[in-house]
Amino acid sequence: MNVNDSVTKQKFDNLYCCRESILDGLKRTTDMMFGGKQVVVCGYGEVGKGCCAALKAMGSIVYVTEIDPICALQACMDGFRLVKLNEVIRQVDIIITCTGNKNVVTREHLDRMKNSCIVCNMGHSNTEIDVASLRTPELTWERVRSQVDHVIWPDGKRIVLLAEGRLLNLSCSTVPTFVLSITATTQALALIELYNAPEGRYKQDVYLLPKKMDEYVASLHLPTFDAHLTELTDEQAKYLGLNKNGPFKPNYYRY
Amino acid sequence: MNVNDSVTKQKFDNLYCCRESILDGLKRTTDMMFGGKQVVVCGYGEVGKGCCAALKAMGSIVYVTEIDPICALQACMDGFRLVKLNEVIRQVDIIITCTGNKNVVTREHLDRMKNSCIVCNMGHSNTEIDVASLRTPELTWERVRSQVDHVIWPDGKRIVLLAEGRLLNLSCSTVPTFVLSITATTQALALIELYNAPEGRYKQDVYLLPKKMDEYVASLHLPTFDAHLTELTDEQAKYLGLNKNGPFKPNYYRY
Amino acid sequence: MNVNDSVTKQKFDNLYCCRESILDGLKRTTDMMFGGKQVVVCGYGEVGKGCCAALKAMGSIVYVTEIDPICALQACMDGFRLVKLNEVIRQVDIIITCTGNKNVVTREHLDRMKNSCIVCNMGHSNTEIDVASLRTPELTWERVRSQVDHVIWPDGKRIVLLAEGRLLNLSCSTVPTFVLSITATTQALALIELYNAPEGRYKQDVYLLPKKMDEYVASLHLPTFDAHLTELTDEQAKYLGLNKNGPFKPNYYRY
Amino acid sequence: MNVNDSVTKQKFDNLYCCRESILDGLKRTTDMMFGGKQVVVCGYGEVGKGCCAALKAMGSIVYVTEIDPICALQACMDGFRLVKLNEVIRQVDIIITCTGNKNVVTREHLDRMKNSCIVCNMGHSNTEIDVASLRTPELTWERVRSQVDHVIWPDGKRIVLLAEGRLLNLSCSTVPTFVLSITATTQALALIELYNAPEGRYKQDVYLLPKKMDEYVASLHLPTFDAHLTELTDEQAKYLGLNKNGPFKPNYYRY
Repeated sequence: MNVNDSVTKQKFDNLYCCRESILDGLKRTTDMMFGGKQVVVCGYGEVGKGCCAALKAMGSIVYVTEIDPICALQACMDGFRLVKLNEVIRQVDIIITCTGNKNVVTREHLDRMKNSCIVCNMGHSNTEIDVASLRTPELTWERVRSQVDHVIWPDGKRIVLLAEGRLLNLSCSTVPTFVLSITATTQALALIELYNAPEGRYKQDVYLLPKKMDEYVASLHLPTFDAHLTELTDEQAKYLGLNKNGPFKPNYYRY
Repeated sequence: MNVNDSVTKQKFDNLYCCRESILDGLKRTTDMMFGGKQVVVCGYGEVGKGCCAALKAMGSIVYVTEIDPICALQACMDGFRLVKLNEVIRQVDIIITCTGNKNVVTREHLDRMKNSCIVCNMGHSNTEIDVASLRTPELTWERVRSQVDHVIWPDGKRIVLLAEGRLLNLSCSTVPTFVLSITATTQALALIELYNAPEGRYKQDVYLLPKKMDEYVASLHLPTFDAHLTELTDEQAKYLGLNKNGPFKPNYYRY
Repeated sequence: MNVNDSVTKQKFDNLYCCRESILDGLKRTTDMMFGGKQVVVCGYGEVGKGCCAALKAMGSIVYVTEIDPICALQACMDGFRLVKLNEVIRQVDIIITCTGNKNVVTREHLDRMKNSCIVCNMGHSNTEIDVASLRTPELTWERVRSQVDHVIWPDGKRIVLLAEGRLLNLSCSTVPTFVLSITATTQALALIELYNAPEGRYKQDVYLLPKKMDEYVASLHLPTFDAHLTELTDEQAKYLGLNKNGPFKPNYYRY
Repeated sequence: MNVNDSVTKQKFDNLYCCRESILDGLKRTTDMMFGGKQVVVCGYGEVGKGCCAALKAMGSIVYVTEIDPICALQACMDGFRLVKLNEVIRQVDIIITCTGNKNVVTREHLDRMKNSCIVCNMGHSNTEIDVASLRTPELTWERVRSQVDHVIWPDGKRIVLLAEGRLLNLSCSTVPTFVLSITATTQALALIELYNAPEGRYKQDVYLLPKKMDEYVASLHLPTFDAHLTELTDEQAKYLGLNKNGPFKPNYYRY
C-alpha cells in the first residue's frame, strides 16, 4: 500500500509541514535572518512549494529550478523566477534541494558559491548534494555546532553545510505531533484495510489508499481546528451523483 | 477527451485565473474595497483556493465552507476558519460560491444576510445561488448598473446580486489571453491526439489528456516568462527511471 | 493644515487604497494577467509599498528602485530586489512610477523597453514619465481604448502607455467610498479645528492634524468592520502615562 | 539620545526581527505547528505587526486586540479581526502580548483559556502577563523543558507559559547578527554625534537621532543584499528641493 502518495501524506506532511520546518531547521542551525536573503530552491514539488512559500513570506527573494515544465509554470505563476542553477549560483545566500534526484548540487556548483553560502537538503535522501566531492584534501571541514559544518576552501571561502547533506527537516527540526498523527493514522488505516480486505481485492501490486480512507483521516483531524464540515442535502447529493458520506472526488482529483 | 481535468486547465485556468478574476469581477461591478471585509467562500476546490488566496492577500477576513474533509483540512492549514454557512451568514459582507453544487445559497440564507451584502457565483453554472427564490412579489429588483441588481426586502434591506447568479468571472471580468492560450492549446492538442491516434488507442470512453501533452502545453508557455528549464543529465534520468523528455510524473501526481 | 501627511491619509489612502487600485487600474485598461509577470516599481513610499504588496501577492516578480536608503532597506526586507532602472528595463513587462519625482522614466528608458511593455504612473502628478519625449515624428501613437495608447517605434515595437502618464488610480480605477470617507472626514475635522481653534493656536504656518483627531477619524470607521476596541483600565492608563481617551502615541510615532 | 525610536530600530529590530523571532521562539520551545492554529495578538504596534504577518503567512488564524483606533484600523485593513480578549479567550491556541502595557493577560483570562493554550510575551518587559497571579497554592507548576512551564489547574487543565512571561524573542530565540549590526551601528553613531556635536546643539533633553544618520545606517547595510541605490540627478534634486545626499524625508515621515 503506497501511503506516501496518499493526499493526506503528500499535501500535509510534505507541503504544510515543510513550509514550517524549512524555517525551523535553518533558524536552529544558523540563527540567520531570512529577510532580504537570496535563496534558490531546487525542485518545485510539494516540498519545494512549501519551502518557497515560507521563505517568500519571510521576505526572502526566491529562485526556483525545475525539470518538469508543469511544475516550472506553477513556479512562475506563484511569483518565482525559474532559472538554471548556474545562473544564480554566485549570488545566492542559501541553496535548498528538494528534487528527489541525485547530484543536483555538484562540486562545480560548490566551487562557485559565495562565501558563507548555506547549503541544505529537504529532499528524500542524502544524494541531492554531492557531499562526497567535498571530501578532498584541499578542503578543510570544521564542525561549528551540531549538524553544522563549515567547509573551507584554500582561499578562505566557507560554505555552511547542514546535516552533512542529509534531510534538514528530520535532522535539524522537529516534526509536529499533528503531522505525525496524520501520517500515522494513514498508515494504520492502510494496515487495517489490508487486514480486513476480502481476498482478491489486493493482488501482488502497489495500491494507493482508497480515497474514502484519505477522507476519513482528514475528518478525524478537523475537530483539532474546531472546523465545521457542511453536509450535503439529499437533493444536492443526488444532483452531484455522490454518496453523502463520500468519497467526494474522483481518483484523479489533485487537491 | 476530458480536457477540463488536465492539469494545465485545473491549476491554471481555475486556480491562477480565478485568483485574479475574483478581484477584477468584484471591482468592476461594485468598486468596493477588499481590506477589512468579511467574506465567505463556499467550496475550497481550485476555484475556491484562488478566490481565498486573493482576498486574504487584499486584507479580507475569509471564511470557508466545505463538504469534503480533505479540502476542509486544506482550508484550515491555509489559515481559513471552516464554518457552516449559517454561522457567518449574518456578519459577512460578501458571499462567493464555487462548489459546482446547487442551492448552496438558499432563500433562507438570503433572508438573513445583512444590508448591502454582495452575493456572487464563481462556480460552474447558475445553480449555486437559488436566484429563482428571489423572484417573489414582496422583493423588488433594481438594476443599478450592467450585471448588478439590488434585490430589496420590504424593510429596505438590499442584497447586491452580481450577474444574476451566473459566473462572475465570465460575466463581469475578462479572461487573460495567457489563460486562453493555455486552454486553447490543450484543446487543440487533444484534437490532434484523437486525430492521429492509432485505431484502438481510444475506445468509446472519456480519457484524460496524456501527461506528456500537458507537459508540452506548459513548456510552450515558459518562454513568456523567460523561464529556463533544467535538463536531466543521463545519469540523473537513469537514477530516476525517467525519459529525459518526460513524462516526469506518474499519472496520479497532484501538482 | 497639512491633511496629506496625517496618518489616516498616508497609511489608508496611499497604502491600502493603492494596494487595490493598482490591480484594478491595470485590469480595466489592459486585461492582463499578473501571475509570472516581471514588474519594476519606482519608489517604495506608501504608494510603492501598496503596489508591490499587491503584485507580489498576485504572483508577479517585483523589482524596486529607490533613492532613500531607509526605504531601500525596507524593500529588501520585504523581499524585493533593489535595482537601478537600467538593470531591469529590458526584461520587465510593467513599469510603475510612484516617486513624486520627475523624469524617472526617460525616453532613453522607453527606447530600451521590450515590446508590449506597460508603462503607468501611480505617483503624485504627470511628471514621472517623460511623456513629452514620446511626441516625436518617428513614433506613432494609436489610441486602442479609453486611457490606453500604443506608442509605436519604427521597428514595430509597441509600448502601452496608460492615462498618458497621468495618475492611474484616478484615471483608470475607482476610489472606494470607504477611503473617500476617511479622507473627507479628516479634511472636515481639520476645517472644524481651524474654525474652533482659540486665537493664537495656529499661526501663519502649515500644521499637521492633531493626533487626537487622526485617532477620532479612525475610531469613527471601526464599526464598519465590526471591530471592538479595548479600553485601558485606570491602572493601565496610569502605568503608561496616558489619558484613557488618547492620544495614545507620541507625535513622531510611525505606525 | 533616544535610539529606540529611530526608524532603523523601530522598523527593523521590532518589525522585521520579530516577524522571524516569534516563529523561532515558539518552535524551539513547543515544536508546535502553526497551520490552522487560532492565535490572538495583543497590540498592533511594530512588534504586533511582525508577529501577525508571520503567523498569517504560516496559516494561523489571527485575532488582534488594540486600544489605539489607528492601529486598530490598520489591523482591520491587514485582514485581522479586531476583538476584545474576552471574546476569543476560550477558543485560541496561542496568546501573544506585545503592548508595552501591564496586566494585559490577567488571572481571569488564564482561568478561562482552554487546555494546552500557549501564553507568551513579545512586549517590552515582564509585566504584560500577570504571572504573579499564577503563584497560588491550587495551581501546580511543572517545568517541562528550559523556558517552558506547564501551569496545572485543579481540574487538570494545563497552560503552557513560555519564559515565565519574560520576552520570548530574547529568552527563547536568537537575535540575527544583521539586526544586531543595525542596532549597534545606530547606537555607535548616536554616541559619535553626541561626542562631536558643537556645544549647544543638544541641551538636557531627549533627542531623536538626526535623520541623516538613520539614512547612513541603512545605506551601510544595503551591500549585504547587493542592493543598488538610485542617485538623484541635479535636476531631480532641485525639483524635489532636496540635497542629493539626503536627508530625503521630513522628520515626521512614517516609512
